[in-house]
Amino acid sequence: MNSLETYSKAFDTHLKAYQWKNNPKNLYEPAQYILQLGGKRVRPVLTLLAAEVFGEDYRKALDAALAVEFFHNFTLIHDDIMDEAPLRRGSQTVHLRWSRDIAILSGDTLFSLAYGCLESYDESIMSRLTKIINRTAVKIYEGQQMDMDFETQKKVSIEEYKEMIRRKTAVLLGAALEMGAVVANTSESNKKAVYDFGIQLGLAFQLLDDYLDAFGNPETFGKQVGGDILENKKTFLYLKALENADTDQVEQIKNFFLHKNFDATKKIDAVKNLFLNTGAAASILKEIEKHTLAAFDSLEQIDIPANRKNQLRSFGESLMGRSN
Amino acid sequence: MNSLETYSKAFDTHLKAYQWKNNPKNLYEPAQYILQLGGKRVRPVLTLLAAEVFGEDYRKALDAALAVEFFHNFTLIHDDIMDEAPLRRGSQTVHLRWSRDIAILSGDTLFSLAYGCLESYDESIMSRLTKIINRTAVKIYEGQQMDMDFETQKKVSIEEYKEMIRRKTAVLLGAALEMGAVVANTSESNKKAVYDFGIQLGLAFQLLDDYLDAFGNPETFGKQVGGDILENKKTFLYLKALENADTDQVEQIKNFFLHKNFDATKKIDAVKNLFLNTGAAASILKEIEKHTLAAFDSLEQIDIPANRKNQLRSFGESLMGRSN
Repeated sequence: MNSLETYSKAFDTHLKAYQWKNNPKNLYEPAQYILQLGGKRVRPVLTLLAAEVFGEDYRKALDAALAVEFFHNFTLIHDDIMDEAPLRRGSQTVHLRWSRDIAILSGDTLFSLAYGCLESYDESIMSRLTKIINRTAVKIYEGQQMDMDFETQKKVSIEEYKEMIRRKTAVLLGAALEMGAVVANTSESNKKAVYDFGIQLGLAFQLLDDYLDAFGNPETFGKQVGGDILENKKTFLYLKALENADTDQVEQIKNFFLHKNFDATKKIDAVKNLFLNTGAAASILKEIEKHTLAAFDSLEQIDIPANRKNQLRSFGESLMGRSN
Repeated sequence: MNSLETYSKAFDTHLKAYQWKNNPKNLYEPAQYILQLGGKRVRPVLTLLAAEVFGEDYRKALDAALAVEFFHNFTLIHDDIMDEAPLRRGSQTVHLRWSRDIAILSGDTLFSLAYGCLESYDESIMSRLTKIINRTAVKIYEGQQMDMDFETQKKVSIEEYKEMIRRKTAVLLGAALEMGAVVANTSESNKKAVYDFGIQLGLAFQLLDDYLDAFGNPETFGKQVGGDILENKKTFLYLKALENADTDQVEQIKNFFLHKNFDATKKIDAVKNLFLNTGAAASILKEIEKHTLAAFDSLEQIDIPANRKNQLRSFGESLMGRSN
């Protein structure tokens, strides 16, 4: 088995070798721009890892991994328009650096090119990978739409919130793994188990991100700590705090989330205290643990040698920050 | 052979029977909304027609036709955002009726669902149809980007203009026909010839639209006559007029297209006169004739009985308004 670093480097080499058309340049430059901003390449690495775990040369999965990363970056370009985000990975977003229209169109292009990456496979594998992208793409849009709907929706349940992050974040991790498994042509039950591993890991990962958004170390978190609180986002912490709160705490939380005229630092500190005092912080940590364990449990269903399972487990641990 | 009306009705029945998901409704309602606005269903009818022309039951091509129409409507949703269009087929556009973000996301959804329509075919046909959509989608975005670039580009050549409309309009007509031919599993040379027929017909059709935008009958044209002139669009008529104009006429044209403070009716009348006096109007009619004849010529390359070729020819004639 190769190391995660090997996959990541091989992926970057493969991405660099991609033959871009260059005309019209306002279409292809933004697509290349967002891809070279980097990021952790979590999803393509999962595809390569899954292929090798199921006994295939990981290099056979490079085009599938490229499709996953192209698709992911297309969703980022469109999400950034919707969120009116100024920055992506510390650089200007496509819609600001170019324009809204160019961001819409170069996003659409990247989506088509993602499907195009699958053309190097034989018809059988190509059509199975294409079906996974079809199914996954729609789920992700549903998740994004639910997220937008939550902003004006009066009551959001914890179940709805978890369903939203499952679609918006977790299914792509599951799909990335499943695509590697398809390239390796493994059994249906192995494909299902590795997909479930991705879903549970994705849920744990997103909940951890929610937790760190409030309680993370500003020096290592990478985003502004307290960002969700300042944006009055209905995250797990907020919903759980409301669920557990006494009458007085409910009023405090609603007051902080309905009004805007607070000093940022004071608001963040006060809301964090409410998250702690209502037990929401403890709840989310328990929930993260639950999904991480469920992910590792689903590895039991996979029919491969133990040392290969360990590779998936290591990836999970490194994603959850349990190792370096 | 069935009539064009049969295809069109069969397509509408098939579209109505499509099983939509309904949640989140802000994602699926806009997609259904734009599809039920109607339109001439030119593209899906071409797919059904091509399948039958090449000896296949047209009903086998219904899902491919649905994919073409889903794809086309996705591009309309996104184009309407970019053009800031208030109306589409006389009804409010998706981005105005819902919101910009919902229009982006429901467009993306429709695009994924288009690919999904192809899942009912066996792996071989599915992957060939998918490749056609991949290739076509990218060409259409390139055409749209060229069109946007033209707005600020100082010099646009007639060749560039024709390349733009080839990508933005003609390739989808070619692809719609080719997809029907793929479903019918005809020869490579037949597929190529019917694709070429679509390209030439698409060029003729778009140039006719340009012509009618200035010289059409307001009662039958369907859009505002003179719309391109008021928007200072660099169409074939404008580019050809500039090419043919004497010094005095060049100045008049540039004056009309650089400034905005003209009475609309006066500007339209004056520019139409310039289009006539420079010979641009005669030129575009010649160009339309050339591409229509080239379309009919490419029918000669198709190896099928004459009565079937006549069906394609009739479609071309009806599209170009030469019959009922």
